[in-house]
Amino acid sequence: MSILTEVDPINALIVGASQGIGLGFVQQLLKYPNIDRIYGTYRSRQAASSLIALKNSYLDKLCCLEMDITQEFSVAEAIKTISQEVDRLHLVIYCVGVLHQGDLQPEKSLKQINADNLIYYFQVNSIGAVLLAKHIMPLLRHKQGSIFASISAKVGSIGDNRLGGWYGYRASKAALNMFLKTISIEYSRRCPKTIVVALHPGTTDTRLSQPFQKNVPPEKLFSVERTVSQLLSVMEGLDMSNSGQFFSWDGSNLPW
Amino acid sequence: MSILTEVDPINALIVGASQGIGLGFVQQLLKYPNIDRIYGTYRSRQAASSLIALKNSYLDKLCCLEMDITQEFSVAEAIKTISQEVDRLHLVIYCVGVLHQGDLQPEKSLKQINADNLIYYFQVNSIGAVLLAKHIMPLLRHKQGSIFASISAKVGSIGDNRLGGWYGYRASKAALNMFLKTISIEYSRRCPKTIVVALHPGTTDTRLSQPFQKNVPPEKLFSVERTVSQLLSVMEGLDMSNSGQFFSWDGSNLPW
Repeated sequence: MSILTEVDPINALIVGASQGIGLGFVQQLLKYPNIDRIYGTYRSRQAASSLIALKNSYLDKLCCLEMDITQEFSVAEAIKTISQEVDRLHLVIYCVGVLHQGDLQPEKSLKQINADNLIYYFQVNSIGAVLLAKHIMPLLRHKQGSIFASISAKVGSIGDNRLGGWYGYRASKAALNMFLKTISIEYSRRCPKTIVVALHPGTTDTRLSQPFQKNVPPEKLFSVERTVSQLLSVMEGLDMSNSGQFFSWDGSNLPW
Repeated sequence: MSILTEVDPINALIVGASQGIGLGFVQQLLKYPNIDRIYGTYRSRQAASSLIALKNSYLDKLCCLEMDITQEFSVAEAIKTISQEVDRLHLVIYCVGVLHQGDLQPEKSLKQINADNLIYYFQVNSIGAVLLAKHIMPLLRHKQGSIFASISAKVGSIGDNRLGGWYGYRASKAALNMFLKTISIEYSRRCPKTIVVALHPGTTDTRLSQPFQKNVPPEKLFSVERTVSQLLSVMEGLDMSNSGQFFSWDGSNLPW
């Protein structure tokens, strides 16, 4: 979608920007000549020092906001703050995701299934994106066109599942994909110039993939910079006919 | 799968048997000449009077059990009871599902999204099936062959989603489909004669579909008896190569 490379100024929101791919998006977008404002959200200020440090170099462009995507009022509050500053967004990317966190580890087998862990996967990886879509819609209803993207994962493809395991992560990404497809249909009626997509970043050298990198060949383990560049290229190539689809980092379509 | 029509005696478990399609399965399976034991579970005894009434006519064949699929200990307890009576099951069908319940109504738009409702959809429509798969596995590990099926829904197909809406129901059925696919992979290693499938019953005249029947042409609104017969026919035709797939009532494959 040419919006990213046009000369008109654009505003972006990166949800989950304190680290990993989200932080990488903020870093690269800050260098776009047509970027006017970037909003980067974090859950915990303590863990967001890299994001907040960027603020010193980009005082006018970057705004860091607290947003806990498991709490609807927190999503609504952060978006209210954004709405007081700008009347539209052109790029919104949901980069929040959990695979492991302390005792929460991806299940190798059914024996490790725990209902509370499954609920937490759905809250963070799936439900947060739909709460964001609900509250952000008014800022996407404008004529310039916009993108609402979410980091998904190929392991969330039901059709591509050959290895099994990782029950909660897989199912939460499949649920996310269904939410995104359903959002794309509602947006096509209510803010018809917004493209909604699910993005598979490839295995990226972040905290999320860290414990699972040993079997990944080096050429398939991307730096954050590389992943972000690749996903920005994919998004630059999108048009309205791509809304509601699932793309890999190389621009190919993935099966549901 | 010929197991359903073989002469050797078989045991079945229908989870969510107090009404609708689950009750229909119990009623029809009780008439199978090769059925030895049927276990039918209910969440609330008060709402299970039709199931419990059947018990009078089939004292030796039918066993009614309480199982709240949102509580893992309840799933484990019921299965422990079954294990004390039989050492194997040949047919397990997850028929629990919620679309509406009091204030919980399928969302027509993002405006109606509520995180607690979404969690409840996942608990009932998705997580319960994987808890069942976890605890039931030892009873499926035998050489006669077995089927682990779950009622899914075509509106849970991401690829087939054209109308939008029903966020929670759709995403919970997509998550269920991913769970079933992942279970099929684990079962292929641990109880390799079990076929795992997702089944779309078609719109069936039950309490679940009742508020949404008015736009369904009469020939597309199935009686419970018809749906159950059709799904039993589909299951009779399955072989191991079908494990991990999603079938419609007419035996056709559905896209994820």
